[in-house]
Amino acid sequence: MSISNLEDLFLNELKDTLDAEKQILKALPKMIKAAENEDLKAGFEEHRAVTETQVERLETIFESLGKAARGKHCPGMEGIIAEGQEIMKELDSGPVLDAALIAAAQKVEHYEICAYGTLATYAEVLGYDQAKKLLGQTLQEEKETDEKLTTLASELNLMAEHEPAE
Amino acid sequence: MSISNLEDLFLNELKDTLDAEKQILKALPKMIKAAENEDLKAGFEEHRAVTETQVERLETIFESLGKAARGKHCPGMEGIIAEGQEIMKELDSGPVLDAALIAAAQKVEHYEICAYGTLATYAEVLGYDQAKKLLGQTLQEEKETDEKLTTLASELNLMAEHEPAE
Repeated sequence: MSISNLEDLFLNELKDTLDAEKQILKALPKMIKAAENEDLKAGFEEHRAVTETQVERLETIFESLGKAARGKHCPGMEGIIAEGQEIMKELDSGPVLDAALIAAAQKVEHYEICAYGTLATYAEVLGYDQAKKLLGQTLQEEKETDEKLTTLASELNLMAEHEPAE
Repeated sequence: MSISNLEDLFLNELKDTLDAEKQILKALPKMIKAAENEDLKAGFEEHRAVTETQVERLETIFESLGKAARGKHCPGMEGIIAEGQEIMKELDSGPVLDAALIAAAQKVEHYEICAYGTLATYAEVLGYDQAKKLLGQTLQEEKETDEKLTTLASELNLMAEHEPAE
């Protein structure tokens, strides 16, 4: 697509974010499997369900614009997920991997917080009220997920610190 | 390097972040050149100087750990920067590209806010007081940069909205 105004930029960012969400949906089962801590596992499980709703919201917005809900490859999310996969290869399950999984998940969340923040601002400037509302809901959820991960991190980092050095 | 405890994870994240900062230092001149708005150009210029100080802080931390300040390729930042470069190829200079550059820069900032947040927490748990202080300073700067970009975005998005569709 060629981009020449803010509407185009909005659509471009929507496509990027839809692809990012779909990449997350693919990555989450591996993270759920790798997590040892039950709260972390449950958190990832919950986030999978939340992500599915967020994809549906994006689809609703595409529909309201009269556009096909087609993603555009998001290299940012690809890189962030690749980092998480790298660490999963290097570590066995346990408190240290759990701490690393949280760090990886927070990078995912921050990418999304930023993307939805940008999208909500564009929607506001463009006068897309319904889109702005839907994007704001997702933005709020992403922030809450990030906060939950921060709380869990303080507990899990302490557990990781007590792992003996090998 | 093999990772088996929180110290290793801290060092691994330090290396990732050093590499990310160096990738940013390489990318900024292109963003400065592509930006049309003078405030945005000046903001990127200022961020280049700030990033150099942030790299020095990381080097001080490596030194305090008795480790060589060597980065480890950061795929997350590579992907985020690739997204920015993609949009620079698609658009000529002007308000729409400026809006896109801000969105790209905020993704960079959010990656860093997350990385420094994780690093500062690890440093705290590990009792690395000087590192914690240095990382906290950088974290604060990254948050301030992100806020400045948000303020600039509201102005530039409005200007982009007034660009005629082609």
